[in-house]
Amino acid sequence: MAPKVTIIGAGSVVFSLGLVKDICLTPGLKGSHVCFMDINDERLDTVYRLGLRYCEDLGADLTFEKTTDRETALKGADFVINTATVTHDEHFMKLRREVTAEHGYFYGRTGMPEYHNLQLFLDVARDMEEFCPDAWILLAGNPVFEGTTLMARETDLKVCGLCHGHYGYKQVARTIGLDPERVTWQAPGLNHNIWMTHFYCDGEDAYPRLDAWIAEESEKYWEEMASKGEIPTQMSLAAVHQYRMFGLMPIGDTPRRAGWWYNMSLEARQQWYGGSGGNDTPEGRQKVLEGKERKRQQMREAAFDEKVRPVDMFGNTMTTEQHVPIIDGLVNDHEGQFQVNVPNNGALAGVPDDVAVEVPALVNRKGIQPLRVEPLPNKVMLECIYPDWLRMEQTLEALLSGDLSMMLFGILENHQTRSYEQAAQVMETLLDMKRTPPMDHVEDIREHYNWPEIWG
Amino acid sequence: MAPKVTIIGAGSVVFSLGLVKDICLTPGLKGSHVCFMDINDERLDTVYRLGLRYCEDLGADLTFEKTTDRETALKGADFVINTATVTHDEHFMKLRREVTAEHGYFYGRTGMPEYHNLQLFLDVARDMEEFCPDAWILLAGNPVFEGTTLMARETDLKVCGLCHGHYGYKQVARTIGLDPERVTWQAPGLNHNIWMTHFYCDGEDAYPRLDAWIAEESEKYWEEMASKGEIPTQMSLAAVHQYRMFGLMPIGDTPRRAGWWYNMSLEARQQWYGGSGGNDTPEGRQKVLEGKERKRQQMREAAFDEKVRPVDMFGNTMTTEQHVPIIDGLVNDHEGQFQVNVPNNGALAGVPDDVAVEVPALVNRKGIQPLRVEPLPNKVMLECIYPDWLRMEQTLEALLSGDLSMMLFGILENHQTRSYEQAAQVMETLLDMKRTPPMDHVEDIREHYNWPEIWG
Repeated sequence: MAPKVTIIGAGSVVFSLGLVKDICLTPGLKGSHVCFMDINDERLDTVYRLGLRYCEDLGADLTFEKTTDRETALKGADFVINTATVTHDEHFMKLRREVTAEHGYFYGRTGMPEYHNLQLFLDVARDMEEFCPDAWILLAGNPVFEGTTLMARETDLKVCGLCHGHYGYKQVARTIGLDPERVTWQAPGLNHNIWMTHFYCDGEDAYPRLDAWIAEESEKYWEEMASKGEIPTQMSLAAVHQYRMFGLMPIGDTPRRAGWWYNMSLEARQQWYGGSGGNDTPEGRQKVLEGKERKRQQMREAAFDEKVRPVDMFGNTMTTEQHVPIIDGLVNDHEGQFQVNVPNNGALAGVPDDVAVEVPALVNRKGIQPLRVEPLPNKVMLECIYPDWLRMEQTLEALLSGDLSMMLFGILENHQTRSYEQAAQVMETLLDMKRTPPMDHVEDIREHYNWPEIWG
Repeated sequence: MAPKVTIIGAGSVVFSLGLVKDICLTPGLKGSHVCFMDINDERLDTVYRLGLRYCEDLGADLTFEKTTDRETALKGADFVINTATVTHDEHFMKLRREVTAEHGYFYGRTGMPEYHNLQLFLDVARDMEEFCPDAWILLAGNPVFEGTTLMARETDLKVCGLCHGHYGYKQVARTIGLDPERVTWQAPGLNHNIWMTHFYCDGEDAYPRLDAWIAEESEKYWEEMASKGEIPTQMSLAAVHQYRMFGLMPIGDTPRRAGWWYNMSLEARQQWYGGSGGNDTPEGRQKVLEGKERKRQQMREAAFDEKVRPVDMFGNTMTTEQHVPIIDGLVNDHEGQFQVNVPNNGALAGVPDDVAVEVPALVNRKGIQPLRVEPLPNKVMLECIYPDWLRMEQTLEALLSGDLSMMLFGILENHQTRSYEQAAQVMETLLDMKRTPPMDHVEDIREHYNWPEIWG
């Protein structure tokens, strides 16, 4: 039976088109029905048109639907891919960086626990329980770790969070002169906090190769890459230092965020990531924003310009995203191995059962079955995994209790915070930020959070 | 059978004399043998003489022994009270405050994981396994939380950590106008991290009284106390703020240390603790040091001056320390209720079994049996208990692995640390501090800790 695949937040056009491509190119998903849902009419129309035209180009047997109504989107869905976001919008994030910089925070890193996106995830999941309780929810929006854990705890849905950071292993391999195709690897942990426990090339341990590269070639590499532009975060001095500090190579988004001291200021970024400090700086992120705007313009052309054919622009090969192959595995028993975020239930030792871990899994008609991986070293657990687990628990408790003092606590615990007053002030500033259109679709943050009665 | 009670670090004269007093005044412990052990001959002699003379004053039936040899002290012991410390010496701590201040740290709070005292505890405990494996170890030296957990994990001894901070509930009661004798209470948690879950006066909930005092009388009280000298930490603005922030009143040493923002600088201390900032400031601690010196001089007089009788100086009533009543309970089945630190094993929900919790316990011939208390609120667990648990685990892993990078990590995680370089430098400074005599009795810190091989 061909599934109905619903994409929530489908206006994220690049991502949605990737899904359409992958479905078109997956024989087993012939006849599928794709439902695009977004609150932004214009973006929704773009992706709908683009999907239709791309499908025409390939002569694929798919049907499409677009809607701004969540209930319509969810009813009858077999898979819901949630890529929607309230605050992970480049313009909003830029504004937030600017207003928090006035309080002395670099790059918007205040430590205030996430609210909007998590509340949205929860609202969607609760609606799914009503309208499509047997559907899978595949979470593509951040924060994946908190969101996957939250939805799995608060609903009876089948939940899986997905990310592509783990492909960082390919960059490690390529940089030290290995063909990624000949590499086998494993990097479990929590989302954005994964550590390469196994790294083989042709069945031989490749860690000694990495060590030799660090000892003999890294300095030259960093100089060379910095002179050309930027050093890839995956192979930056920060990543190598984390390897030394924690004992395993950090993969993907991990080296972007482990350790406040790498990310405290522009100077720290430049010191540890080289060049002008990489993408996670105001200047670097401005380039990301501009790149996304260009891409969006290109998408609009491909959608509406009769002279442009989408297939010429986007090609006809599968993306490397895992969503559609996972759907193919679940629907058609086309088994595959993937890197997923699912409730632990024993897969990674030392982590509670109801916490989402990122681990390899076999996917087939039986479901998404994680491998019970080797335990991570104590040091990684104590210095990387547990601190993140604790922050996640604090964030979810803040969300579910609506206790404003837990928001304040989160900011206080952030290493960039220098005083109680600074924390209290930046929190008020963030709470007072002008509402963006997506915020109208979740409860207002000022209404959701209140001081405990005892606050006086 | 009258027990042999060994006091390790007996040169801490005030504490040791208190134990002697309590044993003298406990009928069931008639005939006990008290063994004083210390590495400092002069202090050892002082306490030995003082013990003998005090015992004479009371006509008590006790025998005494003094030794600088640990094996002699431990052989045949039924109870070992360990009050020994390597670094909790006022002069050493003062020097450490001074050298770390040069690196920008206030009050020596660098976050470097404890080594010397823990290693000493472990060495003593391992010797006990050899020389008196059936004896109880009662830990009186800090850090009690880490030390109790460590000894309980690494040996098969019967381990109990003791502190007197929980008596802070009396100050809460008195300050708000209640007679402590009419108060019943409970404050479980981890040592120096305990939270008043129950507070009754004549069986009525006394929290509303506390709330009324905070609303109506606290400001006046703070003004008045500050004008007289210092505000007691237990009833300071910091303590009340922690009550608001975490939802339960912090007890004893808890309000001294919860929340970096109360303790970041002299100004923060003055803001939150009032007056000149209280004892946990360089100036305040200097007074503590001088008070201890005066006390020590007084002790020497009482020990050696024939015109002075110890009983005139120190009276003949029991102290409020729990050690001797606990021994009396264990030996003579004189049942009592105490606040102890023991491996959790289910007493406090949410904490692993092998972590030492501070909980009330019934003590009698059956042993030290903790009450399975009500769970602490989620917020206290997430913001106070788990962070401390995590730091304890990091400290013990650093100690047991000897991994120097874990020392560095501990300093980096401290909120006073502003940069990687600052952390690395202050660590070297601390590692290079001049050895004090007690340090000769544990492995040298530079030998114990090494960079991991991968550090390069």
